Amino acid sequence: MKVSQRLNSIEMSGIRKMFDIASPTSINLGLGEPDLLPPKKAIDGMTLAAENGLNKYGPTAGIMELRESVAQKYSAYWSDLKSSNVMITPSGSSALLEIAMTIIDPGDNVLTPSPGFVIYGPHAKLAGGTFTDYKMSGPDFQPDLEDIKSKITPATKAIVVNNPSNPTGSILDEESFKGILDLAEDHDLTIISDEVYDSFIYEGKHLSFLPYLDRSIVVGGFSKMMAITGWRMGFLMADEDMMDELIKMQYHLCASPNMPAMYGALAAMPDIEDYLKDARTIFKRRRDLIVQRINEIDGMHMDPPKGAFYAFPSYDLDIKSADLAMELAKSGLICTPGSAFGSYGEGHLRFSYAADETKISKGMDILADTYAKLRKE
Amino acid sequence: MKVSQRLNSIEMSGIRKMFDIASPTSINLGLGEPDLLPPKKAIDGMTLAAENGLNKYGPTAGIMELRESVAQKYSAYWSDLKSSNVMITPSGSSALLEIAMTIIDPGDNVLTPSPGFVIYGPHAKLAGGTFTDYKMSGPDFQPDLEDIKSKITPATKAIVVNNPSNPTGSILDEESFKGILDLAEDHDLTIISDEVYDSFIYEGKHLSFLPYLDRSIVVGGFSKMMAITGWRMGFLMADEDMMDELIKMQYHLCASPNMPAMYGALAAMPDIEDYLKDARTIFKRRRDLIVQRINEIDGMHMDPPKGAFYAFPSYDLDIKSADLAMELAKSGLICTPGSAFGSYGEGHLRFSYAADETKISKGMDILADTYAKLRKE
Repeated sequence: MKVSQRLNSIEMSGIRKMFDIASPTSINLGLGEPDLLPPKKAIDGMTLAAENGLNKYGPTAGIMELRESVAQKYSAYWSDLKSSNVMITPSGSSALLEIAMTIIDPGDNVLTPSPGFVIYGPHAKLAGGTFTDYKMSGPDFQPDLEDIKSKITPATKAIVVNNPSNPTGSILDEESFKGILDLAEDHDLTIISDEVYDSFIYEGKHLSFLPYLDRSIVVGGFSKMMAITGWRMGFLMADEDMMDELIKMQYHLCASPNMPAMYGALAAMPDIEDYLKDARTIFKRRRDLIVQRINEIDGMHMDPPKGAFYAFPSYDLDIKSADLAMELAKSGLICTPGSAFGSYGEGHLRFSYAADETKISKGMDILADTYAKLRKE
Repeated sequence: MKVSQRLNSIEMSGIRKMFDIASPTSINLGLGEPDLLPPKKAIDGMTLAAENGLNKYGPTAGIMELRESVAQKYSAYWSDLKSSNVMITPSGSSALLEIAMTIIDPGDNVLTPSPGFVIYGPHAKLAGGTFTDYKMSGPDFQPDLEDIKSKITPATKAIVVNNPSNPTGSILDEESFKGILDLAEDHDLTIISDEVYDSFIYEGKHLSFLPYLDRSIVVGGFSKMMAITGWRMGFLMADEDMMDELIKMQYHLCASPNMPAMYGALAAMPDIEDYLKDARTIFKRRRDLIVQRINEIDGMHMDPPKGAFYAFPSYDLDIKSADLAMELAKSGLICTPGSAFGSYGEGHLRFSYAADETKISKGMDILADTYAKLRKE
């Protein structure tokens, strides 16, 4: 049996590779998932739904109550947002694949951020298109508008923005936001805006592309918001015409999302702002800890990231990030090599700080020791 | 924003269309989902997992315990089946899309059964290929081997088999099974075998393609098996080389399946044969009822289907099945027009009998009255 060219042309995620080699005793700062407990109401809501018989097919776009609840929350970014602009998806990843399959044709090119999350490029390829990495640059990793401009061709169909960013933790500033929007207008590009970390901003303000649904599709998720990465629940927001197409695509991907999980998320939505306020307080403290510990290491450096929950320091040794990550894994610390995040990720490591402070401290002890040792070699 | 050609070229499912026009008081025999309660252990297992903190990312291919449990159950069809041959998927539909994306290239053609389930053809198109319906013929809807042979070209890459069949309820007999296998061998085709209804056979024996994983990929599901269509949990079985590719594809579709739902399915697996024995007794009684009621109607006919839970009678009026289904919907009975099931579905209606007997009887009253009235016009 032969494998399709499209699948042959993409690789398994470098994040998952590290996940697979982690031993049970490793300090695992490799995977981007909050260690917090989910809101109790989410668990209870899911349980109650299952016990009350809500275990059958639901609507393709998700239950209306949850679409309404999301629309209400996200109307903070755009007051006209309606439930008809929201579709619940079986993960943010699925939402992104659905978008690629819905708007990308063979021959189309998608601009993808680098350092950036690992699935945008493969999604373009799975849809029969191609992708080109654009550079996130400077100490706070803003999109390099000149680099983007130089890479736009007649084949360019869409640009992916990830704000706040995985792996850099950067958030788009006003200038970058306007720059992307202008480029998209000038060259008729669709903005695929992955905003799944919008709840995790410690300084500054989230600039959402939601007010520009005439030229963007916005992805959000419950995974990080409610610390339920294992439930695989996300959503996307689009204008109503595009939504019809996305719903058709979702029917062919999964028929409809998981019913008990949707009722769980729904139950937790009314109090979610309080939950997130507490989560941000905890994550900010962890961020400050990990940034301090990293900057104490000779040869490693990073500026405090304003959002998400990743530290993405640079290092000065002449060693590939995959090799450095492997050295660390041998010493008991799992992280992700910068090279997993595209053309411009090399020379960095990614640590998730969505872990408790003891774990972060122990991990940083291993990092400091191992890096010092390697520097002496 | 422009929509991709591939998505423009496919239509929304005719099953879902009818689902959307159903009023709350309609007798709904349109959707294929068991009305039974799920095994209590499935609900409890999911609940317990969520309460015990199993809400985080799991392995891309699903938790090992569930892969093992599936391998054990399905080793009844092929004793060499191992957990490494099994991947848990976020629905049987997702499994089928993953398979199409993994083996179909632009230019490839897929042979799809008709009357047959609605997503096989669109999946081939979503993967950039094309599809050609082959005919299921005779009173028990066996694949027409001559028709298949006449449609094989150098572009033919795969053949989809759905056994037991949705919408006809037929099961493959020995001759058809061997015929398909021989054609696949002779023309180097991959058999995509959708066996999600394998637990629902009332007469005869299920012939699985599992012993032929060198040339087939087999899809199964928990949805029908455990009456949890809303949980979106399926699985696929493939040889180990192909599995690596399918896992890579699944990572890009959803990262990993829903954790609490996997633990729920796992908890129900040890006692599932008892549950299914009871379910089959109930469904067989309903089948006998609906077949009898339908054959009592002048101008409608069907042979008793051996598997699944659908009645797919023919009718003698010169009216399109979509119009007939609409007339019935106006009278309060939801079913699915045969035309939703491809080139050879016209002249039939599909009724799901996974509903209680009172509902079936009331539905058949409406069918008998409406059809008699239309015949007099």
